[in-house]
Amino acid sequence: MSRLFLLPNLLCDEADAAWHLPAATGQIVASLQGLIVESEKAARRYLRRFLSHDQMAAMPLKTLNEHSLPAELDLLLQPLLQGETWGLISDAGLPCIADPGADLVAKAQKKGVVVQALSGPSSILMALQLSGFTGQRFAFHGYLPREAPLLEKQILELEKKSRADSSSQIWIEAPYRSAKLLEALKTSLHPATRLCVAVQLTSPHQRCISLSIAEWRKFSFPLEKEPAVFLIQSFDTQGDSKFGR
Amino acid sequence: MSRLFLLPNLLCDEADAAWHLPAATGQIVASLQGLIVESEKAARRYLRRFLSHDQMAAMPLKTLNEHSLPAELDLLLQPLLQGETWGLISDAGLPCIADPGADLVAKAQKKGVVVQALSGPSSILMALQLSGFTGQRFAFHGYLPREAPLLEKQILELEKKSRADSSSQIWIEAPYRSAKLLEALKTSLHPATRLCVAVQLTSPHQRCISLSIAEWRKFSFPLEKEPAVFLIQSFDTQGDSKFGR
Repeated sequence: MSRLFLLPNLLCDEADAAWHLPAATGQIVASLQGLIVESEKAARRYLRRFLSHDQMAAMPLKTLNEHSLPAELDLLLQPLLQGETWGLISDAGLPCIADPGADLVAKAQKKGVVVQALSGPSSILMALQLSGFTGQRFAFHGYLPREAPLLEKQILELEKKSRADSSSQIWIEAPYRSAKLLEALKTSLHPATRLCVAVQLTSPHQRCISLSIAEWRKFSFPLEKEPAVFLIQSFDTQGDSKFGR
Repeated sequence: MSRLFLLPNLLCDEADAAWHLPAATGQIVASLQGLIVESEKAARRYLRRFLSHDQMAAMPLKTLNEHSLPAELDLLLQPLLQGETWGLISDAGLPCIADPGADLVAKAQKKGVVVQALSGPSSILMALQLSGFTGQRFAFHGYLPREAPLLEKQILELEKKSRADSSSQIWIEAPYRSAKLLEALKTSLHPATRLCVAVQLTSPHQRCISLSIAEWRKFSFPLEKEPAVFLIQSFDTQGDSKFGR
């Protein structure tokens, strides 16, 4: 029976695998006949945790990333359609969440491949858990636009959306643009809106700060070129939440 | 140093912990001075995996659920403010995602408690991974309204939203209402909209079916009183996706 395993990766190299990867990960990796990866470099760092040098050398790797063409999906699935069991990993976190794995899964299922997922780290959900913001309703937006006027427009739309349906609004930013984005948020958002910045999650340098924009404006937060998740929750009036925040 | 651990729970009793819980979970549970739980019954099933009978009897449990009053948060945090390390678990999956833990985390952090999360299963993200729908942008809505006219209005709004920003829209339904909701979706959605129903995730009875509404209308899917996650992705025209679905 053809199988595709969606395997979790750590969010960063310094993360503790015992805290963030299921115990069976290594055993399943060792049983695979090949691995579909976002980048070979990250894949080798991943495999090194679980396999010997010889096992690694014998493991076929195929690449699926944002440069892959639609026709390549069929090639990637060929060994699975001949009965092999392969894995899919992302460079960080869960495959198919904010990465290009979804179309491969859709095609695999259409062709009768059984797709199974192991649980693992998601910077989106971990940031949401640590933010203290509502997890009853939330939306993830990937990256926001870079051009200042478009960015401000979307920031204000997300704030309005959060206020309208009491939801958390979540997005990510490239490390080298995080500090600039934080300044834009401090300028554009309402003073009562709460903003959480979650930086380098699961690493020893993890920080997760949740404050109102009024508080952020008085707060100095050194944000270097670090991967960050941004979350906002906006309230109609202060003290609107059940628990009086 | 006061610490609150956000600990993952399995999505169902039959799930394989080696696939879905990090290896360190048991060791951290055994080190806790107490556990804040959604229900004591589910908590005891959880603890039984990791602790001896005597260890379980010695572990203080406190309850936090949708009936908890705001004033109770201070009581829950009291031992942590005296330097103890406690855990927080949900009845299933990750605490603070679609459960009432968020306000506790917000209050804990305000009072200087260090909050740390282990990675683990989320039915929302696993359904999204297995759906084959885009994980670049998505929104989770909890439960939809029950009254037929309100339900239909929201279904159509979510479909419009998915089409407008190429996102996946996700929600859950109580087991005894899943079959009825599926019928409503088959009736209300556009034939080209794709619907995924993910049932009993991580259990031996797991099924995850992604089809267009036109296909669902010809498909008989026995949906008993089972926990289910529903996802839609709507396309402007058929074949709109990069990979021509």
